[in-house]
Amino acid sequence: MATAPKLPRVVNGINVEDLFSTIDAIKATPAIAKFKFRIRNQWKGASQNCSTANQFYGAGEEQSRPQPFVLEADEPAMLLGKDTAANPVEHLLHALASCLTTSMVYHAAARGIHIEAVESSFEGDIDLHGFLDLNSKVRKGYEGIRVKFKVKADVPDNQLSAVVNLGTTYSPVFDSLTNGVPVSVSAERL
Amino acid sequence: MATAPKLPRVVNGINVEDLFSTIDAIKATPAIAKFKFRIRNQWKGASQNCSTANQFYGAGEEQSRPQPFVLEADEPAMLLGKDTAANPVEHLLHALASCLTTSMVYHAAARGIHIEAVESSFEGDIDLHGFLDLNSKVRKGYEGIRVKFKVKADVPDNQLSAVVNLGTTYSPVFDSLTNGVPVSVSAERL
Repeated sequence: MATAPKLPRVVNGINVEDLFSTIDAIKATPAIAKFKFRIRNQWKGASQNCSTANQFYGAGEEQSRPQPFVLEADEPAMLLGKDTAANPVEHLLHALASCLTTSMVYHAAARGIHIEAVESSFEGDIDLHGFLDLNSKVRKGYEGIRVKFKVKADVPDNQLSAVVNLGTTYSPVFDSLTNGVPVSVSAERL
Repeated sequence: MATAPKLPRVVNGINVEDLFSTIDAIKATPAIAKFKFRIRNQWKGASQNCSTANQFYGAGEEQSRPQPFVLEADEPAMLLGKDTAANPVEHLLHALASCLTTSMVYHAAARGIHIEAVESSFEGDIDLHGFLDLNSKVRKGYEGIRVKFKVKADVPDNQLSAVVNLGTTYSPVFDSLTNGVPVSVSAERL
């Protein structure tokens, strides 16, 4: 008698068997967990910048995409730009939003929690007295960021926050942004 | 005898008179310096996310673009994604790169330093033992980020670092990422 082929267990679009295989592989060979992510940026004049993301290092070797992803940035006219793309501090919010969501979705999948839909909004405060060097007590960056998640998932109301907390607990960008990262900068002549 | 019309002083593509007019306006009415930047994100399933950046608050009122900027994110296949877009931690590097470059260029313009070209590369280390909850001593986010700037500018060699330091001194994303930002997160049912 024929038996049905075993189907991969997919939760929230994530192949959970692949996820646990990755964990087993790292337990067996810890060095493959070390990743290096990279971008290259070129100034396009005035307020405009273009980055490419392609190669990264992971699982013990160099990895690359078929072609680089191109990321643009500009500033709105009010901030002396041409408003052709989102600005750097909006890109930072996108990095945070996508990382919180993906981290929540992956960790929910690993726990068998089914998520049907996620929407979120992000708002951060910047006082230009900092950037423009008009008041040394005002920081240059975001003074605070507020995040609102709306989630449709198969959990009772009192566990909804716990699902969203999977994002804040495991997100690399949330950790980087809330706890800070050491950044070293070198300069040479082009 | 006719006199030539006064041309705006443009340095590095930045209208420096507009920059100083902005500073004067903020000195006269400090409240207009308060900005709120925003994005909205929607999960597209599995590892895919899409944000839109459109409205922001600045100069005392709501501002919006003719149409929203759309920002995508995914993960490479090795991280269980479909590799259709840069991933969140690459977007974070783009935010940092574009902000450091723009901040350097604006502050150089204000000082009359002409910059001809800027290229930069960014690399950050992430150990998946953190994200995958395999070792509580390993952080989830970037352990460190290395930045290399190459700049063509009308300054002597020994002042090149000072020009790049205008970026690290004034960049909102550099400040946010190196010093950390408080992020509050709420959750409700969709």
